[in-house]
Amino acid sequence: MSAGEKDGGHVLALSGGVGGAKLAAGLAAVLPPGRLTIAVNTGDDFEHFGLTVCPDIDSVTYALAGLNDTERGWGVADESWRAMEMLGKLGEAQWFNLGDRDLAMHIARSWRLREGQSLSEVTARLTGELGIVHPVVPMSDAPVRTQVETEEGVLEFQRYFVGEQCRPVARAIRFSGTPGAPLSPGFAKALSRDDLAVVVICPSNPYLSVDPILAVDGVRDALLARGVPCIAISPLVGGKALKGPLTKLIGELGKASDNRSIAEHYRGLVDHLVIDECDAADAEDLRGTGLSVTVTQTVMREAEDRERLAREVLAAAGFETD
Amino acid sequence: MSAGEKDGGHVLALSGGVGGAKLAAGLAAVLPPGRLTIAVNTGDDFEHFGLTVCPDIDSVTYALAGLNDTERGWGVADESWRAMEMLGKLGEAQWFNLGDRDLAMHIARSWRLREGQSLSEVTARLTGELGIVHPVVPMSDAPVRTQVETEEGVLEFQRYFVGEQCRPVARAIRFSGTPGAPLSPGFAKALSRDDLAVVVICPSNPYLSVDPILAVDGVRDALLARGVPCIAISPLVGGKALKGPLTKLIGELGKASDNRSIAEHYRGLVDHLVIDECDAADAEDLRGTGLSVTVTQTVMREAEDRERLAREVLAAAGFETD
Repeated sequence: MSAGEKDGGHVLALSGGVGGAKLAAGLAAVLPPGRLTIAVNTGDDFEHFGLTVCPDIDSVTYALAGLNDTERGWGVADESWRAMEMLGKLGEAQWFNLGDRDLAMHIARSWRLREGQSLSEVTARLTGELGIVHPVVPMSDAPVRTQVETEEGVLEFQRYFVGEQCRPVARAIRFSGTPGAPLSPGFAKALSRDDLAVVVICPSNPYLSVDPILAVDGVRDALLARGVPCIAISPLVGGKALKGPLTKLIGELGKASDNRSIAEHYRGLVDHLVIDECDAADAEDLRGTGLSVTVTQTVMREAEDRERLAREVLAAAGFETD
Repeated sequence: MSAGEKDGGHVLALSGGVGGAKLAAGLAAVLPPGRLTIAVNTGDDFEHFGLTVCPDIDSVTYALAGLNDTERGWGVADESWRAMEMLGKLGEAQWFNLGDRDLAMHIARSWRLREGQSLSEVTARLTGELGIVHPVVPMSDAPVRTQVETEEGVLEFQRYFVGEQCRPVARAIRFSGTPGAPLSPGFAKALSRDDLAVVVICPSNPYLSVDPILAVDGVRDALLARGVPCIAISPLVGGKALKGPLTKLIGELGKASDNRSIAEHYRGLVDHLVIDECDAADAEDLRGTGLSVTVTQTVMREAEDRERLAREVLAAAGFETD
């Protein structure tokens, strides 16, 4: 059965931060309410100043609400840093910068979590308040934390990513809290829907942003047992990541920074890989691995790019929009 | 023994928020390090968005650090409200406004409290980071909360003061957590110093800002047993409070809004009352109650006013400065 036969079917997108959030926003723009669930990596989450910061949930939320800063490439548009400056005067650590508008999100989330709400409940409330109609769900309500084993020891993700700017040489990636972290209710519901028609792995870092999602109890098994297409969008463009540490990291993990590594990483999970037109030469080689391959422009600069890519991804999975 | 015999003696000031903070800043300006402790009301403290807000400690801190907003009359100068606007977009309550710079204080305090530090420890750290050399100490590290019994029921202080703008008719004031709230270590130390030379009750609301301090275990007894002058500055000017609900409240509590009510309120505790020059006519009547009375300009608009009043208060207690 192809997804095309299920025109009313449901799309489940797995997303990390910025790159994934762009495609998630594209999918949200082309799919009506009730047809899309976005399950988001929470391995990057951490506590800072006693506040629970969820960078990828926030990137997706800001992108879907049209609040993301497109110039800086992360965080909220029209941001200011007054609280952070004052925290500096108060002698507090400055290595992780939190904008004033972004802080509001962390404050609202943290106090509701502390009052006993789950991350799923808090996220549903906050995204709803911002007018987002598609469910944005954490991969798990239990804490899963991405840790990078480096030559200088094990670093919590944000220490590695922001504190050390990905400088230490990585040896392996691990996810504390797994196994044992259950699927969030919204993610579990999406994975088990009768009308699930396609799973989309957004163009996020496979090792740092998608692997934590796959490490949540039951996700990999559910994806392996699925009866619907799974399509991944390569985060590489010309063998390099547009943003983030993937290019450096992939070499440190002993792999080539190319689409073959991406295809091998997702082997067995993914039926279809979307690669950028500047890597068109990879297509034939990749098809030899048994994958379907779509070659298109994967760089998303404007809303139109996000929506065009979303439509192409869904069409590649045999899924019609509009 | 007059305080004048102890020129190296220590001054203990009891302070509420804005008005008290001004005189506290004046005392801090005219006294060298080691000669002043400021014990601050924490009955107004409350939790908002999961953050511990200590309005009076912050008013004193901002005034002593020169960060207080003199035009608005409360909070931090050069304030902005970006986080609060975003909290509004996120559907969060807007009745209590927190500026971005002020939020930094609450964030820094709250996470250190949550990590197990006492309010005294946190306050010492934060005031120290802002360059404040005199100890600013909470009256107690235990939660004491001012509650206003009104015709519409019992209201937590900030609900009464900010949420309801002091509109409901007050019947009585009470302090949850007392008895049973011990003196903070710094307050206890100041009260028991051998060189304690004078206690100054700053021009704060006697019912809402000074009474909670007096309700802390041992404070009233220590003041009654003291061997040094205690001098209060009336918060009334022309029978009215410059700021806050005192004028309305004092009537609702069945008293006249005049210095005689202030004198009666502090009877037995205070030897000396400082009143404003526009209430000079009250002086003779007050002296009839056995109090010493100083008449001077108590309104503090500029730093010079604060310092002049501080010197006059200390001189009235027989305490020489410089």
